[in-house]
Amino acid sequence: MERVSLARRAANLSPTVDASGHSSGIGFDSGHGFPGIFPDLTSSAVRALNEYRAETLQYAERPGMPELRAWIAEYLNSAGATVGADEILVVNGAKHGIELICRTLLDPGDAIVVTAPTYFTAVPLFRSFEVDFIEVGQDDEGLDTDELAVTLDRWVRSGRKPPKFVYNVPEFHNPTGLTMSRHRRQALLALAHQYGTWILEDSPYREIRFEGAPEPSLLALDDQRCVLHVGTFSKLIAPGIRIGWVVGPVEMLARMMQLKSDGGSSPLLQRMIFEWLNQGNLPGHIDLARGAYQAHRDCMVAALHRDLPEIAFKTPGGGYYVWLTLPGGIDGDELARRAADKGVLVIPGSKFYAGSSGGFPNNEGHPRNRLRLTYSYPTEEQINEGVKRLGAVLRSMRN
Amino acid sequence: MERVSLARRAANLSPTVDASGHSSGIGFDSGHGFPGIFPDLTSSAVRALNEYRAETLQYAERPGMPELRAWIAEYLNSAGATVGADEILVVNGAKHGIELICRTLLDPGDAIVVTAPTYFTAVPLFRSFEVDFIEVGQDDEGLDTDELAVTLDRWVRSGRKPPKFVYNVPEFHNPTGLTMSRHRRQALLALAHQYGTWILEDSPYREIRFEGAPEPSLLALDDQRCVLHVGTFSKLIAPGIRIGWVVGPVEMLARMMQLKSDGGSSPLLQRMIFEWLNQGNLPGHIDLARGAYQAHRDCMVAALHRDLPEIAFKTPGGGYYVWLTLPGGIDGDELARRAADKGVLVIPGSKFYAGSSGGFPNNEGHPRNRLRLTYSYPTEEQINEGVKRLGAVLRSMRN
Repeated sequence: MERVSLARRAANLSPTVDASGHSSGIGFDSGHGFPGIFPDLTSSAVRALNEYRAETLQYAERPGMPELRAWIAEYLNSAGATVGADEILVVNGAKHGIELICRTLLDPGDAIVVTAPTYFTAVPLFRSFEVDFIEVGQDDEGLDTDELAVTLDRWVRSGRKPPKFVYNVPEFHNPTGLTMSRHRRQALLALAHQYGTWILEDSPYREIRFEGAPEPSLLALDDQRCVLHVGTFSKLIAPGIRIGWVVGPVEMLARMMQLKSDGGSSPLLQRMIFEWLNQGNLPGHIDLARGAYQAHRDCMVAALHRDLPEIAFKTPGGGYYVWLTLPGGIDGDELARRAADKGVLVIPGSKFYAGSSGGFPNNEGHPRNRLRLTYSYPTEEQINEGVKRLGAVLRSMRN
Repeated sequence: MERVSLARRAANLSPTVDASGHSSGIGFDSGHGFPGIFPDLTSSAVRALNEYRAETLQYAERPGMPELRAWIAEYLNSAGATVGADEILVVNGAKHGIELICRTLLDPGDAIVVTAPTYFTAVPLFRSFEVDFIEVGQDDEGLDTDELAVTLDRWVRSGRKPPKFVYNVPEFHNPTGLTMSRHRRQALLALAHQYGTWILEDSPYREIRFEGAPEPSLLALDDQRCVLHVGTFSKLIAPGIRIGWVVGPVEMLARMMQLKSDGGSSPLLQRMIFEWLNQGNLPGHIDLARGAYQAHRDCMVAALHRDLPEIAFKTPGGGYYVWLTLPGGIDGDELARRAADKGVLVIPGSKFYAGSSGGFPNNEGHPRNRLRLTYSYPTEEQINEGVKRLGAVLRSMRN
């Protein structure tokens, strides 16, 4: 991996590299992919638009393109799952999959379990279904299943219905970067079985691994069919592809299909990505993505040690994010505002807490001194410059 | 327009021409486009995937690509509307737009007005929002605004809230093929203003006009800003593009954007179609589409006169559909079942009625002897063969 050449590739892709609205600042705030590694899909597109024109410009089959569904099943099964193509629904990205699951399962007043903190943009989506949140903490082994067991016991003893699902990002969690241990995964599956609760496994970062061996997915460990698994090509290949998938029971997918108002996810995008995958491009691209994001992570970690020695964080073993604990008196929201004034966009930790309902758990409120930084999108030059500015902002707040 | 060459183009696009599931029969049932006129988007795709790679493979801007929104506004304004790009939200096809409007406006128990019959696949979508339907009839001038005035007066006098919106396809209505006269459009706008009701104008077939001059759209006639307008490239260019739009007040679009769970409609598809439009390809394509669909219509009308002289219909002046009235004793559902056995897929009229609520209007039930035929998708050879088989089926039912 030559960093210089990647940076140059990104620069060559201007002038639209900043079309996302980041032109005015250094973007440590988004889950955008690094433009320097976006693949060349031209030949797949040409093939899709010519050889397959009558398919790709027509209405699509509602569940998704059969060959793509089979490819996704095989991809998951090669990592230990045992799913059939008929258990795959193609959707317009992971969030679309989460929304369809919510629309299928949730009624107003239902409870769901989320980690504290949890994936930022899922919170308003969940909230729009008028759910009660049950928050559960995390430690170095990921979601704290001992705490969850106690909370669920109290919840059910108080006469309430068990939560409809436990939502989690088990690998390289957004925002904390934590990964669930094997033991915790098994404990979570046991709890789900005990309470008749679904697990919503959202796993966009699984392949963006820099170190160590992967744990089996919750889907692969699930022998009770209580896992609804959401995947996407967005974080692995490119967000613009807008193709993801849901794995679930056939009868539940049938209901989701009825709720899909898109006339079937784009057949052109499905055929394009299938042709690209089918040509064997994925393994090489995973290497490229891992190398690039690891370089970005290394750059950001080094910059944090250099320019923000007073903050604490755990170096993420994969994914896009690093989760900072600021010195005690520093308010993350205030720091984010001041950083924006200096052209550095970050998201304060406060945005990542759903807020618990009915005293579960009865916490003292969420910490105010957290901050999420993304290293996926910015160049290494921007990472160095942005962290340097953050250091100056932090010092200005301590004086 | 050379019919032979179009048919040959369609044939050359096999073997996937029948990927929609129509391989087993002659498809008079779907709103699919004719593959023979699907445009060559290759150069637009190559440009989108290379010059604009950092934009097209990244997350999109939530409201849609600015240049495309501006193009759509200009397109609508060239036909008499006066909308700004900020009043356009890009969505994944018209039905996605309708769904977002429903999610923004509707609460359970709200009423909406639909024609009887109305667009088939919108009915379960509306029903999922637990609405009450108020049905209104049509005649040769389209939606019967005199009847609607009487119905709304009775509805409101009975102490109920006015309906949230009137849903209609004012041009080449699906399934009836009828087009609203100018007078009726103005009367509908006056009623909407009087009752504080939105009009949901769904106009996918407007450009597929074979004869005469167009009436102004409801959007263009609207000086009270009570029209929510939904458009799409699906029927005009190709369904697989999966790009449509909603025109509405900025504050309502902002709410719809929050509800969009697709991470922004695909930036790649948006850029592709914009490049194609911006190269001036649309006028020539409209000519091609009009010619092809008019040839299909002429073929189907001639076949109906020849092989089904006992049925009644009004020759549609545009669009994709012809709406048949069968001889009195013939049940459309039964005919559709028997036709399917003979390899001809049609949709019985019964599917197109939402069913009225609370006796508005207090009708005697819907006619059972209607049938919708689509001429858009099948080849002329299939049209002739399919109508011939329908004739045989009908005669078998009369013996």
